This record gives sequence, structure tokens and C-alpha cells, in this order.
Amino acid sequence: MLETWLDEDIGRGDLTQAAIDSSKNKHAYWKCKQDGIFCGGELVRCLYNHLDSSVKIDLKKADGESFTLGERIIELHGPVYSLLAGERTALNLAMHLSGIATATKKLVSELQGTGVLLADTRKTTPGLRQLEKYAMRCGGGINHRLGLDDAAMLKENHIAWSDGIDKSIQSLRKNIPWTSKIIVEAETDQQAKEAISAGADGVLLDEMSAKHICMLVPHLRALAKQMSRKIMIEASGIDPKEIKNYASTGVDIISTSAPITKSNWIDFSMRFNENGEKN
Amino acid sequence: MLETWLDEDIGRGDLTQAAIDSSKNKHAYWKCKQDGIFCGGELVRCLYNHLDSSVKIDLKKADGESFTLGERIIELHGPVYSLLAGERTALNLAMHLSGIATATKKLVSELQGTGVLLADTRKTTPGLRQLEKYAMRCGGGINHRLGLDDAAMLKENHIAWSDGIDKSIQSLRKNIPWTSKIIVEAETDQQAKEAISAGADGVLLDEMSAKHICMLVPHLRALAKQMSRKIMIEASGIDPKEIKNYASTGVDIISTSAPITKSNWIDFSMRFNENGEKN
Amino acid sequence: MLETWLDEDIGRGDLTQAAIDSSKNKHAYWKCKQDGIFCGGELVRCLYNHLDSSVKIDLKKADGESFTLGERIIELHGPVYSLLAGERTALNLAMHLSGIATATKKLVSELQGTGVLLADTRKTTPGLRQLEKYAMRCGGGINHRLGLDDAAMLKENHIAWSDGIDKSIQSLRKNIPWTSKIIVEAETDQQAKEAISAGADGVLLDEMSAKHICMLVPHLRALAKQMSRKIMIEASGIDPKEIKNYASTGVDIISTSAPITKSNWIDFSMRFNENGEKN
Amino acid sequence: MLETWLDEDIGRGDLTQAAIDSSKNKHAYWKCKQDGIFCGGELVRCLYNHLDSSVKIDLKKADGESFTLGERIIELHGPVYSLLAGERTALNLAMHLSGIATATKKLVSELQGTGVLLADTRKTTPGLRQLEKYAMRCGGGINHRLGLDDAAMLKENHIAWSDGIDKSIQSLRKNIPWTSKIIVEAETDQQAKEAISAGADGVLLDEMSAKHICMLVPHLRALAKQMSRKIMIEASGIDPKEIKNYASTGVDIISTSAPITKSNWIDFSMRFNENGEKN
Amino acid sequence: MLETWLDEDIGRGDLTQAAIDSSKNKHAYWKCKQDGIFCGGELVRCLYNHLDSSVKIDLKKADGESFTLGERIIELHGPVYSLLAGERTALNLAMHLSGIATATKKLVSELQGTGVLLADTRKTTPGLRQLEKYAMRCGGGINHRLGLDDAAMLKENHIAWSDGIDKSIQSLRKNIPWTSKIIVEAETDQQAKEAISAGADGVLLDEMSAKHICMLVPHLRALAKQMSRKIMIEASGIDPKEIKNYASTGVDIISTSAPITKSNWIDFSMRFNENGEKN
Amino acid sequence: MLETWLDEDIGRGDLTQAAIDSSKNKHAYWKCKQDGIFCGGELVRCLYNHLDSSVKIDLKKADGESFTLGERIIELHGPVYSLLAGERTALNLAMHLSGIATATKKLVSELQGTGVLLADTRKTTPGLRQLEKYAMRCGGGINHRLGLDDAAMLKENHIAWSDGIDKSIQSLRKNIPWTSKIIVEAETDQQAKEAISAGADGVLLDEMSAKHICMLVPHLRALAKQMSRKIMIEASGIDPKEIKNYASTGVDIISTSAPITKSNWIDFSMRFNENGEKN
Repeated sequence: MLETWLDEDIGRGDLTQAAIDSSKNKHAYWKCKQDGIFCGGELVRCLYNHLDSSVKIDLKKADGESFTLGERIIELHGPVYSLLAGERTALNLAMHLSGIATATKKLVSELQGTGVLLADTRKTTPGLRQLEKYAMRCGGGINHRLGLDDAAMLKENHIAWSDGIDKSIQSLRKNIPWTSKIIVEAETDQQAKEAISAGADGVLLDEMSAKHICMLVPHLRALAKQMSRKIMIEASGIDPKEIKNYASTGVDIISTSAPITKSNWIDFSMRFNENGEKN
Repeated sequence: MLETWLDEDIGRGDLTQAAIDSSKNKHAYWKCKQDGIFCGGELVRCLYNHLDSSVKIDLKKADGESFTLGERIIELHGPVYSLLAGERTALNLAMHLSGIATATKKLVSELQGTGVLLADTRKTTPGLRQLEKYAMRCGGGINHRLGLDDAAMLKENHIAWSDGIDKSIQSLRKNIPWTSKIIVEAETDQQAKEAISAGADGVLLDEMSAKHICMLVPHLRALAKQMSRKIMIEASGIDPKEIKNYASTGVDIISTSAPITKSNWIDFSMRFNENGEKN
Repeated sequence: MLETWLDEDIGRGDLTQAAIDSSKNKHAYWKCKQDGIFCGGELVRCLYNHLDSSVKIDLKKADGESFTLGERIIELHGPVYSLLAGERTALNLAMHLSGIATATKKLVSELQGTGVLLADTRKTTPGLRQLEKYAMRCGGGINHRLGLDDAAMLKENHIAWSDGIDKSIQSLRKNIPWTSKIIVEAETDQQAKEAISAGADGVLLDEMSAKHICMLVPHLRALAKQMSRKIMIEASGIDPKEIKNYASTGVDIISTSAPITKSNWIDFSMRFNENGEKN
Repeated sequence: MLETWLDEDIGRGDLTQAAIDSSKNKHAYWKCKQDGIFCGGELVRCLYNHLDSSVKIDLKKADGESFTLGERIIELHGPVYSLLAGERTALNLAMHLSGIATATKKLVSELQGTGVLLADTRKTTPGLRQLEKYAMRCGGGINHRLGLDDAAMLKENHIAWSDGIDKSIQSLRKNIPWTSKIIVEAETDQQAKEAISAGADGVLLDEMSAKHICMLVPHLRALAKQMSRKIMIEASGIDPKEIKNYASTGVDIISTSAPITKSNWIDFSMRFNENGEKN
Repeated sequence: MLETWLDEDIGRGDLTQAAIDSSKNKHAYWKCKQDGIFCGGELVRCLYNHLDSSVKIDLKKADGESFTLGERIIELHGPVYSLLAGERTALNLAMHLSGIATATKKLVSELQGTGVLLADTRKTTPGLRQLEKYAMRCGGGINHRLGLDDAAMLKENHIAWSDGIDKSIQSLRKNIPWTSKIIVEAETDQQAKEAISAGADGVLLDEMSAKHICMLVPHLRALAKQMSRKIMIEASGIDPKEIKNYASTGVDIISTSAPITKSNWIDFSMRFNENGEKN
Repeated sequence: MLETWLDEDIGRGDLTQAAIDSSKNKHAYWKCKQDGIFCGGELVRCLYNHLDSSVKIDLKKADGESFTLGERIIELHGPVYSLLAGERTALNLAMHLSGIATATKKLVSELQGTGVLLADTRKTTPGLRQLEKYAMRCGGGINHRLGLDDAAMLKENHIAWSDGIDKSIQSLRKNIPWTSKIIVEAETDQQAKEAISAGADGVLLDEMSAKHICMLVPHLRALAKQMSRKIMIEASGIDPKEIKNYASTGVDIISTSAPITKSNWIDFSMRFNENGEKN
């Protein structure tokens, strides 16, 4: 995708190239204009490497580390033309991903000490799923399934359009790789129980109140134990502001798309050092 | 890109396909879970058409129209498998783009009656520039240059790394297509004046206060008139909250990345009609 | 891939096109030159549809159905040029896949009545994994993981290069999607037990004798029950000739690459009907 | 294709990467689990080079050389992650191609001393034609045409759908590059003679008995001589078990798809050296 | 390639689309501004079909037919936007190819009645080889080899860098498909004779005078006859102005790149019918 | 595109590779067979670098420099196989582009001293637009717009299909990026004046006589001055033979496709040094 992204910005060539002496090498750096969690450093290195392998990138922070306003986060050295041609694409990627990592960290810190994990969803920007899921991990979250093919999740529409949870799971076990888990998104207690009885590997309790989940979880655990099975229980469709309430409901995981769909980009800008002086 | 986006989600195939009778055709619709400006309808049609040309899409709103909580915005009809396989990708696109259109509309409405236009920037999500710029237009904004190749903009780093604004513009006029405009991003009054004297087609006043711009604009207009030239003046690097103050400074255009970098997705969800009943 | 495969054969164009009146439409059919299980019908339809949408394909057998020597398995009608240009590629695909389905069926029938399932492996022809795994299913087998990303399997080399099974599984649980299973390939009883204690979702008993597995399985089941867990047990690295011995060892699954790496293509040939006469 | 093949296995990333310290470099090697002719060494080098240029590959055998059970055929050194991520794809390629080279060699050795050459056909696995034809050469065979565009072959269907062999060849000579040969697949003596009279560069005697060919060849040679032409005569559609009988019929070439459609993969496995010790 | 060519012109979208009512359908036609031979009609149809399948193309001339100044050569009907978006690319293709067909026809007509054929070379515009070779055929020429892989030609540099013509041909016969011809480019009589003795299928007499070739050909024919072989003799590297002299030298073929490297585009322009009136 | 171009010639592999000892390294050079302006050197370097990074290219002339008959323009050193495999594609590119640069230079020299610039058009060979426009610059010309998306030009058909020049320009200003120029192609004095009144950034005077333009330009300049605007005036659709007459009409720019559509390739050939001797 790196080539596609560079092409999207550079197109038929950077017209301003004619205004500068592109044979000169220069130093530049990225300055943080706010606090946050960094994500995208290795990607920026790959991007510049793809554009011009003579550009040297010195990452001052690893992905997942925190930074503060005013810090220099990356040092760059190379031909003026290449530094400028890759600037916008590199910044756009890192600013977007660091925004996600930073928003994730904020939610994860609310779960600290509870043992409950924060997971993402499939609500990701088209073309960026793997990177956005990586940014979630950099912020301390874990990933839900990566796509439609690495785990089977029966959702509202599947259940309505099939012959019930039990038959659906039987059919899946026969047809999907035995190495893939089957998860059920339950909107009622009844569906959650059916899912466990039918041998699901995990249950999502969708858009239920924290109070309700609190009451429901012990029944689900008991049912699983009875079957000599371990079941993962996840709360989804929650308001991120209420995350602390859900943390004490007994679920294993809380999933939310908020760090991706409701976060702001972090602001970095590229500056240069004229005559070696620092500014 | 449509194929890449579908592949990203579907991967080696939707595992849940085995749980449903995929030969059946079904009705489904998208429900708005909040108010906003719609963007992405035609794209959703293309996406489903690419996936399975037998899926019928009925758009209840054109791109750029407003919708309210609870409205049905799209009706879909087709094979169950295809409705589900395209669901997430289609929703992700439309939710993201409608978020941008909605945020743009809010800012544009603050400029209403002033004649000042709202423009975007090159801060766009990698892979989605053309769509995000389209969403800006759907929200009532206009576009700045599309990439590095359709207009030349001398920015801070170009000016520092070249032999001055005047020489840079001369060099550009000789080397870039005569049909391309030359724009200068000025951080000082002096740079703005030099740009106009050197024959720039437009000037960006970057990170200046509204008050300062108010004073500067008349001098720039006079200088341009003296040269029998028309010059476009743009304010950039502003805080969106202060947009009304900038609207009365005499600039032609205000540019901001906020509708793209600081907006939330609009929430839509896909529902279905069982047995023709409405729900 | 369809386009790549057609290009591989057609290259810069079928030279023999000049020898025939390519404007004429003709009937043709595929004749089975031996018995077997069919696989690839829908693919042949897609291939011809991609080449020339005016070619009509009438499938006499669905994928997974058996055929016998002399049967007509596909009827084709369309422009002479297109029938010939797609002939070799279409036959190569269906002959190869039907060979796999047929070989799978033979092994699956040896397991009939035992409840043990036959699974494939990742030993598949580069470029054809999804199709070959589909052929396995057509022959009555099930699939193992599809690639390195939809389930985690710790194999001999991983165990040797890590800090032990227990730590590896702990590390995986933190880093991979919670929706993905973790499987361990055990070469010793000790490794199998460690895997279950550490919470693996499945264990492969690799290159163990049927006798040995028979003795080991009850201990593994007991260990899993003790932990209120369900564990899948698979025998791998077996000689297909001994498959019946392994079927009664108590394992859930037997995996083998033999239907892909040790099978012969099924022989079909394309014939035509001159003047409507049957031959 | 290398990238496609790696993607097919690695997908969204090797999940087990989290279980091992991927920063360490390790030694590994491939062990032969049976005898045969090697093919695919340079390809394995390219594949790993594409995946990670820091992996060092030391080929112990050149393509076309024989190996015996227990031999180490390739030594590898590099980052653990890369050795594992490329393992399956590299082995699949080399095991498949070495199977073809080995099967070819067996047939070629039956022709030794007769001057008759063994050629392949267009029955090749989609996506792998060039490699499988290369494997045939590694086993001592030669290649038939590479596709539909580098030589014109009139087959059963062409002859039936055209105005006869003579007119077809005349039409081809006018329309195809003068640098391309014209070959005719003859199912009867009459067709073979017509082909030579019409100026074909080669004739395939398809599905004829060795005895019949023995009688026919002298007449065809005489006919060619009469026209001051040299003609290549090939026997095709034969049972590989009878190859010796065909070797003494006077044909120049015998073609067969058996090394590709009826061969087994050769078994190699990747092992590693812990602490430098050999095992 | 069609998509690449359209993208090259349309880029991020035709800006003028905003100036016209793109929902209207219109009639347009192409007018010939000079005489010539047409080439590219089917390609124009494919191009527009790819861009917008609702555009109807009515070809007034088949490829290879002659046209005269003022004639309408194509009628188009469809959405204004699509007619304009494809206009330049379609015209560029047809004008370029018709220029080649026209120039070819001129040379071919000089050979009329001599039985000598006019062939092209591998001097073709990168990316357009197949189309330019097709244009040569439309003008009455035939094709030389299509690339480096469909026939082997030993040229000056190969001969110098090998162990002589005889050994080279022996080596080629063993290594290339037996279905491929071997051609030798001879710069001296000696080389031409060696080529024939070594069993070449054709000889190019490069940059020799017509007089010299006239003397040489009978010796070459005699040599071939002696070996019961048929040999093709071609004159290359000639000045197109002298083509008539070469036509009577006894060669089978004259090859030249002139119709591709020294021809002018034919001028067509797209016009429209306002209110149905003809203009 | 480099890969596509190499593939077009090399296809499934250079068959002659078997005739030469491809392990040897050799020297070669390109010899000029006529005078001209060079274009394509850096491209040849990229092409060979892409094919085989061990080939060393020494450019004796920079793009845009003149060369004379007999000069060596490039020295090459590397593996025989690679020198030969890239030869034809590299020569085809450089011969074509140098032909354009040479033809451009001839026209530019006729404008010398007049201050009038020579521009290209969108009549370029499909797939080569950026390179051909680069060749124009190497010959001393400047570029017109690069595609349909970097400037808006209202042409004959747009004007006919819209609601007039004034409304069209108003509509464009609202819908295209504010950074893009609007140009009008005028076929009458009236259209030219309307364009300027409506605020166009440039006017093309199409197919008007030099005499007519001479009279018209002062009126257009006066009209622009009245509006405090600077307007670019271009003459297009001219006969290149009359270029000197147009040079004194007062226009800023003359545009012509002649260097691309009516030029001949420059002739270079690759030679080698046997035993280090120069020839």
C-alpha cells in the first residue's frame, strides 16, 4: 500500500521540485505539538525507504512509547526532494495512528488493575485495518478478529437468517477450519445461553447495561463449567464513558470502536535545521 | 480500491456463510442513529455492484443531503451472503465520509453570508484522499490542491531551502506546466508581499491572528492591483473555534483539516425485514 | 488469479485463431476418461465467463458429486475461438482439483463410521491453496488453518526457539486476536501435556504410532477435563496406508497432505459435436 | 508470483511471531527424506531474498543434481521470524518441483541411448507452467511449446472446425509471425501425410500404438525428403509404462504429461541447529 | 492496459465535468482530416466500453480499410461526460495506429506482385508492441517474432559472445522448446552459409546491398536443398526508399521498422451534432 | 511501467540465453547513427537497474545535451545475459524520446529571441505521456496541462454542450480546486473576449491565422488590463512550418503536437568491445 499512498499525493511528480536545489542533503525532524502515545515509526521508515533508500530515519521513540509536547520524535536526513515528497504522507499516517494509540491508552488506563482487556472491532478505516489494529495494540489494547475469515461470529442478522444458534454452530463446525473459533453476538440472555450450550467459544453481550451483565455472567460461567468448557465473555456496544462500570461485571473483554471512530489525529510537524543550528 | 477494501475484510472468505442459507434473497436497510449530512451513497452502490451485481441498492438520500435520527437511508435487496459480506466495508466507508461531510457543514454554516469559502488541506487519510475531498464538497466546502502535482505551493521548508521566493517562482514558471498555479504559504507580512510581487497566483497567511490578517489584507490587495493581477488570499492554520473571527478579515478562503482530522464517524446500522414486516 | 492463468497459456494470443472461422458458435463437452469425484465446475464457469461472457456452460455434476468413465460432465456452447482459448486452462484446473477430491474421498471412506474427521495441511501448491482446500472439502474432508494468520500453531521449531510451551502460549494470548485458537504440535507425551496445561485449544500428535496415541489420548482427555476445558486432538505425520489404525485411537481428527501431494490428476477431454450429431 | 505465494500463506501476518524472540538469528537446514533430483534451489533463494534480504541461503545442490535420503540440501541463516515465515512456501515449491524433476529423470533414463527426447505438454498446474517446464528440463526433458502464442498446433478440434489441414496451414502462414513453427496433431495416417504435404514443421502422432508408428514413420520421412523439408515427428498420448516400446519407433520426440500430472512431491523438512550442534 | 491509459489522462477526474450537464446523452463522430488506412476501431470500442458501457460505438470502417479526407469513421452516442473523458485517449490510439497501417500499406504496395512479404521488427514503442504489430498486419505486412521468447534469433552480439554459430545452434536445439525456430542474423556471406549448414530455420541478411544479396541467395538456396531443408531468407537493415530493388533479389521477406519509427499520426477529430443537424 | 515494458519483450524468457555463456561480464556501448538531442539516459539506467542491479551504466551525455553522428552516448558493463535482455527495450525508449527532444529543439530554435514559449498538447502516445512531456522539456519546450485533472480547459465540445462560457466558468470556480487554472479554447474573437470577461486564466486561439491573431491580441490584453487581471494567450492548431509567423503575433505561447506526432526516432545501436579493443 505504501506505493499507492505515495502516488496518491505525489501523482505525476512534485511540481515544487523545480524551485529547490534537490541535489542537496538536509537534516529535518518531527516536533510533537501535544502529548500522546507514538505509533507509526517503523512505517515512516519503510515509507521513506521505499521512496528513496538514501534517506536516513532515526526514531527517537519506539511505537507504543509516550511523548510530550515539544519533543522531537523523528530525525531525518537525506535529499531535499525526498524529504519533501514523503513529508505529507508520512505525517498523515503517523498522526492518524498515534491518535488511535493515544485514545486507546486512555481507555486502557481506566481498566487498569481489573484484568479486563480492551479489544477493537471491525469498524476500521477501509485500507488501514491492519495498521489501525496495530495502533490499538500499541495503545495497550488487544485485537478482535481481523476479518470475516479468521473466526466465525454469528451476529444479529446471521441468527435471524439461519435456523437458530444451535444448528448454525453445528453447520459451522462441519464447514469451517477446525482451528477457527466460533463466537456469538447475543442480544438477549436466552441467546447467550443457547450459544454456550451449542458449544460456542465466546459470547458477546451486545448493548446490555452493566447492571444486567453483572447478573448474567455468573449464570453463563456456571453453564460453561457444567459442559467442561472455557468460554470468553465480551461486552460490546457500550458507551466508552461508562467503561469503568463494565470493568467490574465479570466479563473478560470489553470491545469498542471509539479509539478509531471517535479520536482526533495527534499533531506533528516537520521542521528543518538551517546551518546545523537547532530550532 | 473497492476490491482491496472488500478483500481486507473478507480475506479468504466469510466463514459464517456456512451458517446461513445463502441462496435466499432478503431485504435490509440502513438506519441512522444520529443526525447529519450523508456522503457515500453512490460509493456503496459501486461497492455492492462490484461484489455481486444482483444486489439492488435504493438510495433514499443523495450525497450532501441531511438526514435525522431514525431515518432509513439505504434499502438493499439481494442474496443473504452478499448483503453480509459487504456490510462492514460499506458501513465503514459511509460512516467515515458522512462524519466528514457533517463536520464540514457545521463550519460552512458559520461562514454563511460572508462569501468566504471553506477549503480542505492535504491532511487526509492515506488511500482516501479523493473520497475525503469529495466528502468536504458534500458538506459545502471546496477543495485545495489535490496533490503535489496539480498546483505548486511554496511552503516554509521550500522557502528555507531555496534562493528566495522571487527566484523560486521564476524557476517554477519555466519548469512547471504553464497551466498550473503557484501559491505561497507566507508566515510573515514580508513573505506575503514578496509572493505577490513575484507573481504568485495565491497567498496563504499561515498561523496569523485574525486581527493581524485584517490589517494585512488591504495592503496585499493594493499591491496586486498595482500589478494588474488578481490574487487569492487564504487563511490557514487557524483554530476552527475562531472561524467566525477570520471570516471578516477580507480573505477569500479559510482552509482547515478539522473535518477530517477531528471529526467522529456517523453511526448507521444495517437491519433487515423478516417476513416483510417493518421494524 | 483467473486472468493470470489465462494469460499464462494464451500469452500474446492464440496463433491458431487464424486457422478457424472464429465467428461460428459451436457445441462441445467434457468427457470423463475415468471414475472420480468432481471439483472445479463453478470455477470453469467463472473462467469462461471471464474470457468471454457469451460462452454458456452447463454443469452436469455439482462439485463433490461422483462421475464415471464415459460420462459427459460439462456441456459448453459459444464462439469457437473462446472455447479453444480457455480449453487447456479450464481442463488443467478441473483435472487437478478433481484428482484431489477423488483421493480425499478414498481416505474419508476409510474413516466412515468412526466419527474421526480427515483434515488437510498447509502443504498445498503455491497459488492454489484456497482451491485445493476447497477440493478437500468436496471430497469430504475438513480444513486445517488456512494460513499463518488465522490460528497460531506452535511447531517443533517454535518450541525450540522460544522459552517453552507455557510461556509461548501466555505470550500469544496477549498478542494475537482473542478470537484465534492456539494449537501445539507435540512430538512427545510431555509436550502434549504441557500444551494442555498451558491452555492450548488443540494438540497435534506428530509422527507417533497408532499404538502410542491410543495409550496417550485418555491421559490428555483427563487432564483437559480437570481444567474444565475441551481440547481437540489430532494425529498428523501418518502414513495414509495406516489410516484405519489411527481411526480408532480416540483422536478427533487425522490430518494428511496425501490427497494433494501424492494424487494423480483425473483425465477429462474436451470433444465437440459436428452437425449436432452425438459422438 | 513470489509475493502472491508468500501472501497466500502469511496473510495478515504470522501469529506465532509473538511466541518467539524474533530478533535472534538462527541456523537451519533442509533434510532430504528420500532420494531424487533437486529442483527449486534458486527459486528458494529468490523467495527468501524477497521476504527478507538478510537471510543467507547456501545451496548444497544445484538444480538438476541428485540427492539421497538424509542429505542436507540447503543451509539457511537469518532472523528466526523470516526463516519460519518463508518455510512452508519455500518447501512447497521445492518439494513439488523436485517431484517433477525426479519423475522426469526416471522416464528419460528409459530413453537413454536411443536419441529420442522426452518432452512435456501444456498440462501444467495453473500459475506454475514456467516452473514446471523448468523442472522437466532439470530432469533431462525438453519443452514443447510454452503457450498458445509461440507455435501454432492444429489439434483435433481445430481440424474439425476448419476447412482442412492444407487450407489451415496456408492461412496460418499468412497470419502468424513467419518465425513461428506450425505443428499438426494427427490421429490418422492420412492426417499425418496431409500435414507434411501442406508444409507443417512437425507432426504429433496421437494415441497410436508403437507398432503402428513404427510402420508409419518411414513413409512420413520419405514424403518430407521428397519436398526437401525436414520434419519433426513426435509420439503423444502414450502410456508412460510403454515408453521403451515407443523409443524404437523412429520418432524424434515422445511427449507426456506424466511427470507433472502423475508424480508425488519429494519430502524435505526444515530442521535447525541449537547451540551450533549438528543434528 | 486500457485502464492505465485512461488513468493517465483522466487522473483524479476530469475537472471540466462541472461545466457541463453530464446527465445528457449526445451524438458525436470522428472526422478524417486526411486519407489513409484505418486501425484501432475495435480498440476504441473496448476503451469506451471499459469507461462506460452505455456509450454506443458504430464503426463505419473495419480495421484495415481505407478512408478519405472528410469521411466520418466512427459514430458515438452516450453520456456527455463519458464521450469527453475518453476522447483524447481513444483518438491518440487510433491516430497513432492508423499512421502505422497507412505507412505499411505504402511500402507493401511497392512489393505488390513480387511475392515478397514485408515484416516488422522489435523496434516498437514500449507498451504498444502487440498493437503496433497488429497495425502492421492491418496495413498488409506480416509479423516477425513477437518477443525474445517465441523464436531464437542469433544476432551480431550473440555470435560475438558465443563459441560460433554451429555450437550456438546445437546448444539452442537442446535447450529451447523444439517447437521454436532458430534464426540467424548474418552480416557476411560466411555467416549466412554457416547458419544454413548448422540447421537454422531462417537467415537475415543484414545491411547488405541489393546487388550483393542477389548474388548470394542462389548459393544459400542450393546449400539448403543439399541438406533437404527449407530455409527462409530475409533482407533487413535496408533503406525503405530502395525497397523495390530488394524485392527482386530472391529473398522471401523484407523487414523494416520504418512504419513504426518514421511515420506520422493520421489526423482525426471528434465533432458533435447539435440539434440533430449535420456539420 | 518499466517492468511491463521489459516483460513485453522478454516474455517467458530470452531463448538465446542458451547460446551464450551468460556468466561472463562484458563491455558494450551505444553509438549514435545521426545528430540530435539526447533524452532517456536516466531512464535507461533505471531500466537496467530494475532488470539486474549489477549492470553498470555510464552516461556520456545528460538528458537535453546534443550529440553527433558516431559519438558513444552510453557505456554499459555487466552480465552478457542482462545486457542483451534489456537492449531492445532500452534502445526503443531512448530512440523514441530522443526523436521528440530533437524535433522540439528544432522548433524552439525558430522561436529564439522572441520570448514566445513552445508548449506540448495532450496528443501523446498512450502510456508514455509523462516521458514524452519530459522529452519536450529536454528539447527546450514547456508543458501544457498534464491531464484532465490539473487544469480545466473548456474546448469546442464543452462550450457547445454547456450554457455558455460565462456560466461554465462560474460553475467551475465553485466546483474545482481553487488552486486550478481555467483555460478556454476560443475559435472566434467573441469567444476569446467572453473568456477573459468571465475571468479565465488563459485563452487558446485555435486554428486562427497569424495575421488574425496579430490584430486580436491587443484587444484581449486591453480587456484583461481593464479587469486588473493577467491573461496568458496561446496560439494552437498551427502548421509548424509557419511557426515564425506566429512568433511575432504577441502571444505568450505556441502549442503543437508535432514533435510527438510527426517526428522520427533517432537511431542508436548497441555495440560491444571484444578483447577490450575499441571499435
